[in-house]
This record gives sequence, structure tokens and C-alpha cells, in this order.
Amino acid sequence: MERTVYLDNSSTTKPCERSIEYINKALISNWGNPSSLHIMGMNAQNSVDSARQTVADMLSCRADEVYFTSSGTEGNNTAILGTARARKKRGNRIVTTSVEHPSVLETVKRLEEDGFEVIRLKPDKNGTVSKSDIEKYIDKNTILVSIMLVNNETGAIMPVEYASDTIKRKSAPALLHCDAVQAFGKLPINVSRLGVDLLTLSGHKIHASKGIGAIYIKKGVTVRPLITGGGQERGMRSSTEAVPLICGLEGAIKDLPDIEAQLKKQEQLKEYTDQLLLKTGLVTVNSPKDGLPFILNISVKGYRSETLLHFLESKNIFVSSGSACAKGKGSYVLNEMGIDRKLIDSALRISFSRYNTKEDVDRLVCAIKDATIKIRKAN
Amino acid sequence: MERTVYLDNSSTTKPCERSIEYINKALISNWGNPSSLHIMGMNAQNSVDSARQTVADMLSCRADEVYFTSSGTEGNNTAILGTARARKKRGNRIVTTSVEHPSVLETVKRLEEDGFEVIRLKPDKNGTVSKSDIEKYIDKNTILVSIMLVNNETGAIMPVEYASDTIKRKSAPALLHCDAVQAFGKLPINVSRLGVDLLTLSGHKIHASKGIGAIYIKKGVTVRPLITGGGQERGMRSSTEAVPLICGLEGAIKDLPDIEAQLKKQEQLKEYTDQLLLKTGLVTVNSPKDGLPFILNISVKGYRSETLLHFLESKNIFVSSGSACAKGKGSYVLNEMGIDRKLIDSALRISFSRYNTKEDVDRLVCAIKDATIKIRKAN
Repeated sequence: MERTVYLDNSSTTKPCERSIEYINKALISNWGNPSSLHIMGMNAQNSVDSARQTVADMLSCRADEVYFTSSGTEGNNTAILGTARARKKRGNRIVTTSVEHPSVLETVKRLEEDGFEVIRLKPDKNGTVSKSDIEKYIDKNTILVSIMLVNNETGAIMPVEYASDTIKRKSAPALLHCDAVQAFGKLPINVSRLGVDLLTLSGHKIHASKGIGAIYIKKGVTVRPLITGGGQERGMRSSTEAVPLICGLEGAIKDLPDIEAQLKKQEQLKEYTDQLLLKTGLVTVNSPKDGLPFILNISVKGYRSETLLHFLESKNIFVSSGSACAKGKGSYVLNEMGIDRKLIDSALRISFSRYNTKEDVDRLVCAIKDATIKIRKAN
Repeated sequence: MERTVYLDNSSTTKPCERSIEYINKALISNWGNPSSLHIMGMNAQNSVDSARQTVADMLSCRADEVYFTSSGTEGNNTAILGTARARKKRGNRIVTTSVEHPSVLETVKRLEEDGFEVIRLKPDKNGTVSKSDIEKYIDKNTILVSIMLVNNETGAIMPVEYASDTIKRKSAPALLHCDAVQAFGKLPINVSRLGVDLLTLSGHKIHASKGIGAIYIKKGVTVRPLITGGGQERGMRSSTEAVPLICGLEGAIKDLPDIEAQLKKQEQLKEYTDQLLLKTGLVTVNSPKDGLPFILNISVKGYRSETLLHFLESKNIFVSSGSACAKGKGSYVLNEMGIDRKLIDSALRISFSRYNTKEDVDRLVCAIKDATIKIRKAN
């Protein structure tokens, strides 16, 4: 069997050595409970605080604006439920996009059931929502705006900063939340420049373990905790801290290459992939030109995603059909972009990490060509 | 410096080698996203399912009645919030005890603010609530009863089974939830025999990592998920599964010694400790005779808990004052038991694991004697 080519990094990533090393250090020699009054507790607490500072440095915020969660999903739930319900008196509208991650969409749906008006902005064919729609729908009754920074299926970059400007210009009583799970560690993020009040990130998209994430909550913003109890994370997220995974997140962040330099490399790799794929004459690209270069969504006309995925798998090449979170269903993201049903049914998401190479892409393109010869066309 | 004597196992435990090994296996060679359609996803899903079966075997329930969470606290929040709100129409009373873990007490407080009537049964001097109180307060208006199996500060074992019988006898529309975080892996648990509808457990109290727990939800019981999104854990707990920690929980469970045999050993160790301590004439025991032998709560009359704790720490012996979750505050548990304030202020919780020995106890008792010579008495 040939070497594994893993091109499904937007689903999850291989934990890097440094992250694993940090996790083990905590498991083996720093396993105290941060709430314990003795030195073993303090040592654990110090590790958590160090990781918190490392996350804060990445976001250009203060350490006390960072709270650890168990996942991006928990972060999005906390940010949305924790603010909307507390702001009910100031307005009733929530503005988001129709292509958010399910952890946002399912959560605003709960608020809709509670009586909130939820506006879901539709993306254009490039996968981003328009400035004019942002302008149109954010009003004096809007208490929460939740827009992802990078779409997980297409890599489309959303005008989050523009949403922030709009909230200010219109003096809307809205907080701005940003699901930055796909962007964190890949795009430079400065929370002040972005103008967000809340931001969600996750570890396992950047070579940390599954089971750890964080949220940024701007100083002064009130969020009702989702999980209550012993008062850990300054009351925002009770639970004994998952010290090993928190340390592992720090390890993964410290292991990240320079973001700007890496972006350039990924831009080149994406360009290389684009070219090769287009040359085959078999492929349509669904991702926008100016999206995050780590994600390339394509359709292999006439071939069903799942069949392709399994064919590639047989060659030890791993991609996804749509997102991992929508196991098997046709992509609602591509659907919202107005992409033809047949193209949706033949979509593949190729998602890169810093470990991928041109050789990986060669293998992929070769296998796709092979697939179109060996697999029977769908109707 | 002498070898570390860790007697704070009810706060957290040292991850065992098998648990660490399982975690690393997942991090290094089984790091796929369980939601991915390809084999890497399936392998990860299989690991999660295997761990689920292992937990189910421990509880004598079905695998599809087990849901992974990030902690005992999240489990308690899910069990309580997820059922009470959905049962509002059937009644308004919640019965619990005044000595539950903060993750229960803080969470029922939220429900109280929402308009529920919360009855908090007070324990007697042995730390358990009385059958007559259970009888008295569970009524036709009671929709949820939440009683811990073992109290985390004293080891007192609660009459959970009796609460179950009472609910049935009175035909109360109540679900029975049990926080079994301190009991799991230490007492035999059979959810049917116990008669519970929901049960919470946590990994880091049984030598797994911090950051993983599970809840048992009886087939047919409706629980509204706390965290919504991609629909993982059959919709009950969205979030990419924390596969490494789930595997680590399985490793820790598989590493558990025979529960009955271990209980006997711990009974002997507790008895040994009791005897030695009482012989010093310095100590009052706050734990009940018939409590879980893993926990021994004592007071060293005239000496402040924190001062003692730090003195012991200087000898490389680790215990806690009250629970780790109540960082520094006087114990509300001992207070509810009607224990004298001065004894509360001098309380220490000694909590054992299977790794502790008589030599550990000798070191502890010797150090306590030493402390009473070297430390100045409090007023």
C-alpha cells in the first residue's frame, strides 16, 4: 500500500509531536487538579495559565479574555446561547449566515424556537455574504451577529470586519460573534482589528487533540455560562480543567509555522492543485479564488462524491464529501451558493495542512483521473 | 525529599499507564474524525464504540444508553437541565440534597430561578439524607430527583435505591438522576438495580485523564441536549468526539481491579488509618463508619485546615481541605451535617486510591503528629 495522503484536514488533523509531548507531560508529571490548594494544584494551574497566554498572544487579546472549552461546538453554543438570552430586553433579532457550521445553525434554531427572529444571510456564488445584506439586516433590534471567518466547506472568507463596522455605524445593540474554527492558526487574527466581541476556536483543526477549544470573550461582555458548578474558568465554564488537552493545545500553537509565510506556501499548493485539476478537464472548482488556500472544494462532474471518496480511499488518499459534520448528506453550503444539484452530488472537499506536498497533489489528481476511468458514471 | 504520598484522590487521580497508552495510541495512529466517511473515520468511530461498550459493561446497561461528555460537571448539567425543562408540564418540584457537588447545586439553582421549586434534603450527622425525608418530599408534583451515590467530601453513601422505590411507590412523575462520580469504579453499580434513569460519571477520578466523562440515560428517557450542532453522540452531545480521552477512559476502566476485592482492601486501609489517627488523640473523624472507604474526612482539633495542608505538603504529602471544587472555603457539606464550626475549620479530606499503602498512612499520621508540635494552634 502506498503512503497515506491525508487531504481531509478541515475535518481533523494529525496531532503534532509537540502537542503529544505536552499532553504526555501533563498526564505523567503534572496531573494535579488546578483547584487543589497544594503545589500539585498550583503546577497544573500554572500550565493552564501558560496555555491561556499562548492562545491570547495568537488573538492579540488579554489572557483573561480566553476561556477553555471542550470543543468548537461548545464554544459556539456558549457564545450564542450565553449572550442572546441575556440580551432579550435590548432586541429580538439575530443575524447569521445560512452557511454557518451546524453548531451555530442548530443553536440559533433553538433561539428561534424561544421567540427570537433569526436572519440567515445567503451567500453569493463565491460563498460569502454580501456587504449590502449585512447593511440591510443589521438593525437597532439586532442583539447578536454570528458570522464565521472562514467557511469549512469552501474556504470562503466572510466580511466579519464589515459586520463589526456596520454594528457600530448603525449603533445596533448587537454583539459580534465569530466562529473562527477554520481560520485560527491559518489566518492572522487580531480580535480588536476584526472588531469581534466573541470568537470561537478549536484545537483539533491545528494539530492538537480532539476535545479542546477556547473562546475569546471581550472584557466587559456578559456571557451566561452554559455549564455551571465549581466555578472554574472564572465561573464561565465549570468543570475540572482538561489540563492535558489544554497543554496539548499550547504545544500545537507553539508548533505553528509563521502564519503569513505558511499562507503563501498554501497559496502555491492550492494554485498547483487548481491547475492540475483543471487540466484534467474533469473538475469544476466550487471554492472562491480568494478563499483560504487550505480548502479546495471541487466537483468531479458525473461522479458521486461518496463513490469517489471510497475510490480515493482505496488508494490510501483521504478527502471528504462536504464536511465531516454532515455525514453523507448533500452539502447545504453548496446548495445555498446556488450550485447545481448534480455538482453538489459530486463534490469533494480537499483540505490541506502544512504537512501536505506537491507529491500528495500529484497522487490525488492521478487517482481522480483513474477514478473517472474505472468508476461508472452516475446518472 | 521523601517520596510523594498522594492522598487527594477524590480531587483527581494519577492517570494510569494503560489509560495513557490508549490515549497515545489514539493520538498517534487513530486520529481520524469519527464523522468522516472513510476508514480513518470508521476506525475512530470503532474505538469510541468499544469504549462505550466498556462503560456500559461497568454499569450493566446497553451501550446505546451511554453518552460521552467532557466532564462530570457537564454530565450533571445535561442530566438536570435536559430533563427538568422538558418536564415542566408534569410538575414543578425538584428534590435533591444540600450536600451535592456544586455542579448539581448550581444547576438546580438556575432552575429555581426559572420557577422550579427545589427541595434540598439535609443530611444527618452521618452525612446521608434520611429515608423519611425522601418519603416526605417526593410527591406527585416531583419531576426530578437528583441524589449522589457517594458524597465527595465524606464518602457517605446515599439511599439512592430507596429514592427510586419511593418514586415508584408514590407514582411520582419523577426521573431519578444520580451523580456517581465518586462511586464509579469503586462501588459496584447496576443501573437497573439502583433504579436510576440518569447517572453521571467522570474519568479523572479513576485514573483516566481530566476532560472526559459519561452519562447513562435510560432507553426511552428524553433529554434535551445541552450542546447542539453536528449531531454526534446520537444528537445528545454535538462536538467532534474527544477520541483520545474516550479511549483513555476505556484504558482506565480496563485497568480497574476487581471492585469487591478492592473495596475490602480499602476497607482495611481505612480501618488502619482510623485506628492510627484515633490513637494520636488529636483527631475527630467526620466520615461515617459505613461510608465509601476511599474517603476519610477528619478534623485535627485546633489546627486550621489550610495550615495543616501546607505543612503536610512540605513533607510531600498531599491531602485536601474540603473538596478541590470549593477552593479554600469552609466545607458546606460538613456544615450541613451540623458539625461544629471549629471542626470544619480544621477538616482534612484524606482520599485513597488503589495505589496507596500502609506506609503512606504511616507517613501521614506521623506528619500530623509533627504538625501539632510545630504549628501554632489557631484560636
